[in-house]
Amino acid sequence: LYFPLAARSAPLLQRLERSMSSVTIPPPACMLRPLEAPLRYLFGPGPSNVPPRVLAAGGRPIIGHLHPEMYEIMNDIKKGIQYAFQTENNMTISMSGSGHAAMECAVFNTVEPGESVLVAINGIWGERVAEIAERMGKFLRTAMQKHKPVLFFLTHGESSAGLCHPIDGIGDICRKHDCLFLVDTVASLGAAPIFMDKQNIDILYTGSQKALNAPPGTAPISFNDRACHKMFNRKTKPVSYLFDMTHLSNYWGCDGKPARAYHHTGPVSGFFALRESLAILAERGLEESWRKHKEVAAYLYRGLEDLGIKLFIPERDLRLPSVTTIAIPKGYDWREMLAYIMKHHQMEMTGGLGPSIGMVMRIGLMGYNCEKSNADMALHALADALKNCRKSKA
Amino acid sequence: LYFPLAARSAPLLQRLERSMSSVTIPPPACMLRPLEAPLRYLFGPGPSNVPPRVLAAGGRPIIGHLHPEMYEIMNDIKKGIQYAFQTENNMTISMSGSGHAAMECAVFNTVEPGESVLVAINGIWGERVAEIAERMGKFLRTAMQKHKPVLFFLTHGESSAGLCHPIDGIGDICRKHDCLFLVDTVASLGAAPIFMDKQNIDILYTGSQKALNAPPGTAPISFNDRACHKMFNRKTKPVSYLFDMTHLSNYWGCDGKPARAYHHTGPVSGFFALRESLAILAERGLEESWRKHKEVAAYLYRGLEDLGIKLFIPERDLRLPSVTTIAIPKGYDWREMLAYIMKHHQMEMTGGLGPSIGMVMRIGLMGYNCEKSNADMALHALADALKNCRKSKA
Repeated sequence: LYFPLAARSAPLLQRLERSMSSVTIPPPACMLRPLEAPLRYLFGPGPSNVPPRVLAAGGRPIIGHLHPEMYEIMNDIKKGIQYAFQTENNMTISMSGSGHAAMECAVFNTVEPGESVLVAINGIWGERVAEIAERMGKFLRTAMQKHKPVLFFLTHGESSAGLCHPIDGIGDICRKHDCLFLVDTVASLGAAPIFMDKQNIDILYTGSQKALNAPPGTAPISFNDRACHKMFNRKTKPVSYLFDMTHLSNYWGCDGKPARAYHHTGPVSGFFALRESLAILAERGLEESWRKHKEVAAYLYRGLEDLGIKLFIPERDLRLPSVTTIAIPKGYDWREMLAYIMKHHQMEMTGGLGPSIGMVMRIGLMGYNCEKSNADMALHALADALKNCRKSKA
Repeated sequence: LYFPLAARSAPLLQRLERSMSSVTIPPPACMLRPLEAPLRYLFGPGPSNVPPRVLAAGGRPIIGHLHPEMYEIMNDIKKGIQYAFQTENNMTISMSGSGHAAMECAVFNTVEPGESVLVAINGIWGERVAEIAERMGKFLRTAMQKHKPVLFFLTHGESSAGLCHPIDGIGDICRKHDCLFLVDTVASLGAAPIFMDKQNIDILYTGSQKALNAPPGTAPISFNDRACHKMFNRKTKPVSYLFDMTHLSNYWGCDGKPARAYHHTGPVSGFFALRESLAILAERGLEESWRKHKEVAAYLYRGLEDLGIKLFIPERDLRLPSVTTIAIPKGYDWREMLAYIMKHHQMEMTGGLGPSIGMVMRIGLMGYNCEKSNADMALHALADALKNCRKSKA
């Protein structure tokens, strides 16, 4: 019952396919109606609204995923990511997937069975990596000195809490302990300063759909030489073929080999859109993008305080400029407020996530959405909700 | 050195971020140039050209990945996939990734350490799964009766050889041996008949970028009750959190729970495009799509034979209607011919893949591209290449 089939050998079974006159299950009625996607102000923690220029790039006729012109576009994306990350790392690519794919890629490639991972639980994201590590048979050690973890994970922009975590100095500690420093900047890239090389970050990743304003589905990631040394000198193969950096580095032309072999079919339209979003960031400049996010966030803070709303993170310097968390106004049902704002203002704000559920509401103004006029709209919608939602007497 | 950080706790290190006056690495010049993506007739094995209607759907302003309207779109996609697969399986979703992601998802979820997988090596795709299985610590058993594999993998549309593999009867054998039957229809779905339920296929997947004509980046997959029973009664967790069907089934509203929890951010634009491509298939009807592929393929065969070109698969009934493989014309360098056709006709045809490299050239006319006029263009380009490319005297 084993069938070693050469390309031209006999078929597995000499039966004919069912004839084409077979009765098929009929098409579903819902698929005969047009696609409906309403206008939405995406002022939550992401995805953010996609600017017309990026939508247009993503809607262009595609080319082949292995055409020389596609490689050029991928090379541009690589340079755009290097700029956004402030790194000169050669091993800089985009995942064909969400930020979570980048997270799994980082862990799958750098950690081997029996090795330890240390995770800073500063919100849902830290917990998420903890679960991945657990799944890989690792468990968290409580001290770097004692247990010598090979990887330390920290979220820079902790969007569940609205916290922007300081990074300076941590990379140095990691180096001293021969540990790789992995930083998640999904919610912060382009909104708050990050300097991959200067800050001794060994692995950095982000998502496409936050301050970069591309549709979700691609995720920039970069590995420095320390990280490459670890992942390309492992004894075991990573569990995932799709996320194996041996193949992905070849696909992205980072391994120095003359030819790129077929590995998987990359999201051509997603890469068009990602390139455009990185181009917008390059044109505007990182400093200007950081300045603008800080300015609009400060403007939003003032407006919130004028409404009597309390910011969740009291320390201003720790606030994530892209996603602002507010304490739920006393006496209000946050779910009702969010539903009211969605219904009457076509605007997404969200509640907390994981540990912050029931504690916060979140307002995101990122990249293209990061404008004072949008902050005004958000404040107007909040004021309207405070006026018209039920307030308990407790 | 362990930092248990509550959302509002003190920062990891009390250092300030680098001041925003820090000098950044300047933006790369290439990112200040516009995106260039030339017109291409994608007559290879895929991705195929995307029709304007699908491009427009993918270029629409996005909504949130967890909005009720997005769930409606995902429900529609589910119904569209059920139709395309000819199944009533509740556990029917799209991966947020390529066909390869669907392949890893199927294997990760249904196979546990110590279990066997049987793979029909009928081209590169079979080999690929074999490598995955090896990576998971399994190895291939040579006989189903002897070794009781839990999963048998077969590629329906073997695009590297241009072979369409018969499916009838195999599912019954698998059932008898308590083995799941996994079928890859990436290159065949919509082009050649497949009946998931009637043919007792336990797990079926495809890609978005072939006869469905959506951009690459999404991949429909369906599991029947047998497959669900196996994957939801496993003792170990799948190695990948991203591909864990416990979470994905919740995200797609297939697990019967009232609420969908956040798992990862799905490719919103990709899902818009996928829904549109499934809608086109539903409008046209499967039988008509199958008939058209067969008709245009037959037209192409005649044209090729008129040019003196030999088809690679002699058995007409085994030929894959979406991708036609031809023997490399005697005396010609296939690389030169492909480059000539690309340069002078802006048309992609490809060589072989894996075992068929140097043996075949491949012409794909799928879905939107499946028209006699396109077959004529391809034949014209081939005739031109035969006339103008060097022919050795050997």
